[in-house]
Amino acid sequence: MAVILTFPDGSKKEFEKGVTGREIAKSISHKLAKEALCIKIDDDITSLDAPIKKDAKIKILTFEDEEGKYAFRHSSAHVLAHAIKRLYSNAKNTIGPPVDEGFYYDFDDLNITPEDFPKIESEMQKIIEADLYFEKKLVSLEDIKKLFPGNSYKKELAEDFLQKGEKLTTYRQGDFEDLCEGPHVTSTSMMKAIKLMKLAGAFWRGDSKNKQLTRVYGTSFPSKKQLDEYLNFLEEAKKRDHRRIGQELELFMFHDWSPGSVFFYPKGAVIINELVNFLREEYFKRGYSEVFTPQIFNKALWEKSGHWQHYKENIFLTEADGQEFALKPMNCPSHLLMYTSKVRSYRELPLRYADFGSLHRNEIRGTLSGLFRVRKLCQDDAHIFCTSDQIQLEILSLIDFIKFVYKDTFDFDYNVELSTKPEKALGDELLWAKAEQVLIDALNQSKINYKLNPGDGAFYGPKIDFHVKDCLGRTWQCATIQLDFQLPERFNAEYVDADGKKHKIVMIHRAILGSLERFAGILVEHFAGKLPLWLTPVQVQILTIADRFIPYAQDVAKELKESGIRVEIKDSAETMNKKVREAQLQKIPLILTVGEKEEVGNTLAVRTLDGKVYFGIKRADFVEQIKLLIKMKGLKVELK
Amino acid sequence: MAVILTFPDGSKKEFEKGVTGREIAKSISHKLAKEALCIKIDDDITSLDAPIKKDAKIKILTFEDEEGKYAFRHSSAHVLAHAIKRLYSNAKNTIGPPVDEGFYYDFDDLNITPEDFPKIESEMQKIIEADLYFEKKLVSLEDIKKLFPGNSYKKELAEDFLQKGEKLTTYRQGDFEDLCEGPHVTSTSMMKAIKLMKLAGAFWRGDSKNKQLTRVYGTSFPSKKQLDEYLNFLEEAKKRDHRRIGQELELFMFHDWSPGSVFFYPKGAVIINELVNFLREEYFKRGYSEVFTPQIFNKALWEKSGHWQHYKENIFLTEADGQEFALKPMNCPSHLLMYTSKVRSYRELPLRYADFGSLHRNEIRGTLSGLFRVRKLCQDDAHIFCTSDQIQLEILSLIDFIKFVYKDTFDFDYNVELSTKPEKALGDELLWAKAEQVLIDALNQSKINYKLNPGDGAFYGPKIDFHVKDCLGRTWQCATIQLDFQLPERFNAEYVDADGKKHKIVMIHRAILGSLERFAGILVEHFAGKLPLWLTPVQVQILTIADRFIPYAQDVAKELKESGIRVEIKDSAETMNKKVREAQLQKIPLILTVGEKEEVGNTLAVRTLDGKVYFGIKRADFVEQIKLLIKMKGLKVELK
Repeated sequence: MAVILTFPDGSKKEFEKGVTGREIAKSISHKLAKEALCIKIDDDITSLDAPIKKDAKIKILTFEDEEGKYAFRHSSAHVLAHAIKRLYSNAKNTIGPPVDEGFYYDFDDLNITPEDFPKIESEMQKIIEADLYFEKKLVSLEDIKKLFPGNSYKKELAEDFLQKGEKLTTYRQGDFEDLCEGPHVTSTSMMKAIKLMKLAGAFWRGDSKNKQLTRVYGTSFPSKKQLDEYLNFLEEAKKRDHRRIGQELELFMFHDWSPGSVFFYPKGAVIINELVNFLREEYFKRGYSEVFTPQIFNKALWEKSGHWQHYKENIFLTEADGQEFALKPMNCPSHLLMYTSKVRSYRELPLRYADFGSLHRNEIRGTLSGLFRVRKLCQDDAHIFCTSDQIQLEILSLIDFIKFVYKDTFDFDYNVELSTKPEKALGDELLWAKAEQVLIDALNQSKINYKLNPGDGAFYGPKIDFHVKDCLGRTWQCATIQLDFQLPERFNAEYVDADGKKHKIVMIHRAILGSLERFAGILVEHFAGKLPLWLTPVQVQILTIADRFIPYAQDVAKELKESGIRVEIKDSAETMNKKVREAQLQKIPLILTVGEKEEVGNTLAVRTLDGKVYFGIKRADFVEQIKLLIKMKGLKVELK
Repeated sequence: MAVILTFPDGSKKEFEKGVTGREIAKSISHKLAKEALCIKIDDDITSLDAPIKKDAKIKILTFEDEEGKYAFRHSSAHVLAHAIKRLYSNAKNTIGPPVDEGFYYDFDDLNITPEDFPKIESEMQKIIEADLYFEKKLVSLEDIKKLFPGNSYKKELAEDFLQKGEKLTTYRQGDFEDLCEGPHVTSTSMMKAIKLMKLAGAFWRGDSKNKQLTRVYGTSFPSKKQLDEYLNFLEEAKKRDHRRIGQELELFMFHDWSPGSVFFYPKGAVIINELVNFLREEYFKRGYSEVFTPQIFNKALWEKSGHWQHYKENIFLTEADGQEFALKPMNCPSHLLMYTSKVRSYRELPLRYADFGSLHRNEIRGTLSGLFRVRKLCQDDAHIFCTSDQIQLEILSLIDFIKFVYKDTFDFDYNVELSTKPEKALGDELLWAKAEQVLIDALNQSKINYKLNPGDGAFYGPKIDFHVKDCLGRTWQCATIQLDFQLPERFNAEYVDADGKKHKIVMIHRAILGSLERFAGILVEHFAGKLPLWLTPVQVQILTIADRFIPYAQDVAKELKESGIRVEIKDSAETMNKKVREAQLQKIPLILTVGEKEEVGNTLAVRTLDGKVYFGIKRADFVEQIKLLIKMKGLKVELK
């Protein structure tokens, strides 16, 4: 007897009936056999040792698969509960799911501190080494009551499952059995590296009226190397956390009276202003026109744009003249009001409206996070109104703009994704096909490798997204180019062609940096606070060796300031060493020390943030070199 | 028998009992006798011929006095009603008050058009020439009913007066008598110049449920010359109306879906951005730090600042996390949150926070007017935090800043007013006295003439206001400097002094241009759209004589653009004359025409907006001259 199994790539193969995932993995490759965690048979994820008795679609899952990773972490949570039950027999286990970065398990009557982690981890290690297999079993409510005597949580969960018409199952590994739907990996021995991370309080079912439980967080990997990499990454990310650096460098603050809205201190405001100036210079060169638009609009606008129907829960509402108004979450509808405020000729096209207006989006308070998730944001937003013949040139020019900003200016790498027509798309079939081809042609012509996401476009048009990779390998979706055939319809946005006939306009939404707040946060983390010279709030700090050199320091500062360089003098009585260290902690790229030698020779001693020291630099030379470095937006600070 | 009369300047003089205002005026000067309209005896304004029978404070009123002017215009309204009654005997007169720019009178059953104005004016002229005296009389309700048979309006008014416990009086001139409280001038002959302006519909008592009446507007002056000046002013102001110019030059637009919030088209946005850049340059030189602050704040902030109690009806409300929030109408409270976010040392002071954030104020819709009265505005707002010892230097530097902007940059004249401690002031008596003296010293040291407004300061501190005078002689309150001892108390804003002790900070609110929107409107009207070169949206327009010169035009445009000059090419097929006229209507300061001669000689033919034409200007010379003109912010465009 044989079964025909279909692999993820669509290929089919015949196996003997009763074949197991483990055997199949071995038949494919040694590597897969080693990495395999469990197997997905049709929609069911189960043990590698489960015999397959009928034709099915199968997928051998490893840690690289999202489902494999989740089963792996879920199993880790069971190992944790197993160890806790062994060490703290009074503890009542409740629930323990996998999460993005690992897993957790909530316990009642468990009183531990992080100092107990090594003991618990060592118990977990024993369970792992015991190579216990996860076994699934169908059980009754009575079984659960017997299995968890005095544990009202499990009883409550089991009753809930039954009420929802679900079956009760448990997973058992060795002498530990848990009420659980699964799925799990095959055996505990697969968890080569496991680590407890932190403790937290958590209310049963997230309800603060219930008892507070002890939540133990952990993470796990299939190898020690992966765990170490992850811990290093965490360490590095912590050092670079923009919230911490933002506070240390006095870049920005938050306040409970305006959650999710950034207060930029003077130094943070410099960064935002420099980013805006940078874009404005490019806008001038690239034929964009900046506009300013209102902040609040009558509900009627949002009904017309569709935001009222599809985005209302994220809109801040207000009232004017007895009517409902909303704070704008996006600029597009206001640009359409400007575009349609007069008859437009083909001669005016393409028209590129750029807008740095503030946008407000009512994100859930608990999800707000530093500059990365805010309620008030400013995008480097622009909308291009053009004819369909002009799309390709516009896209080419946008791809060039994005490359100029990310690669040429910040030396970021990025991935590109093209998302095409979804099932529920609006607009003419032919227009879609043509537009998608235009995007593909433009990407090819720009020699860009891209990932195709078929059907992932917005309902109003296809789009290209750019994912920037930072120095920790994290990717951030920043730039976006979206064609829109829908809003021009809703607003009846037209142009009069050379032949006097009216046509619908094509609208391109695009942002380069995305949210300026978020991009500033990415920069701070990527550069660990050591921002490029042109973006740095204080570019030069002058330290005086003794008070009698203050006049010389002031004279140097004046000259630098007249060249537009941001400079400050530290003339405090502290030791030079301390002042230098302070300046380095403040990530000041250029530290000038002035004393006898400098004053007499009209020179400067310059120390850069990477520790290089230059003596006897002529003042005029220094100013010219720094001006040029700033103007060229150089990433490295080196003097000749 | 004698009476002792006290003059406005406090001087007293004895006159014979029964002396009249006319006699007193004659005794003072021929000019006063000629200009006198009526006399105020204690609190009563009456005829110049009324005999004065007891000691009193008196003031001879002329058109220069607000009260004199109002009596004059009120009398003009009576003359209008008199003429209407003569010409249209069925018309029912209702009410006719003086208003800021003249007077009006509302009539029922009056069906006229502006074409009837000359006839009415000529009838009014007869009444004026008849030199009829205004006579006041106490009357009864019965008298009124007899006087206005079939006129229910007058009956209703009279009954209202009685109900409020007021007496009924009429004023009579010749054969016309009106229910009226007065006051009036002495005789109709005083109205040397009178003119009807327009017709409008107006509901009885302003209630749209009532009948619509015919409102006749007019204005009047004591001399033909003054009337002519006023009419010229109106004509000029109409030509310069920024709403009209704003539309013609495509600077901005409004939309019903966001009343009072400006949409700046690309050209208008250039003006706002140039103003902001100009201020930012000065901020950099003058030690200001720009900050960015949130737009919406919890009600708790506004309660703390006092805005919730005193300004709530002007605040746009919204909601977040189930709590009341408001769109900020002012920046000060958020700057205090930043200031108090850490312990501040005397070494950091003075700290100058500048903020171009959007402010929202819910002005009544009917009062919104172009850029002059908006709901969303951006101020060049700053708050200076300093010690009381630093106030004087800060004020001196602010006075210098204001002079630099208004006089040196825009060549505006301005008046200065100092307002001191009001009765209901908050804060220490001594601090007030000291602060006022500091302001006075600073004004004196800056050699500024100022008007003192005793008791007119804000309750939180004294202030200096700057009133800018435009080319039509209108004044605009723009810059302001306000000391504040109150908000630092409310927010407990302190600094640690050299001795380690804490002190309250002094806060200075100040704006230079005020609202940027409003200032842009003032500039547009002052310059009648012909903005200074550095502010002009399109600085250079290149016109081609024939299509074959387009490449040369493009080359010139490229060179100009690379120098940051805003340039556009008009290569349409229209005649050169038409293109030049178009460019002039668009107030383009520099028009370049390019043809054979220019291309061959690599030169330019330049035409400025005041009609000067320069031929054979070398390209490089032109670019350098224009760059310098822009950099120096010159008001005149002249080439060498």
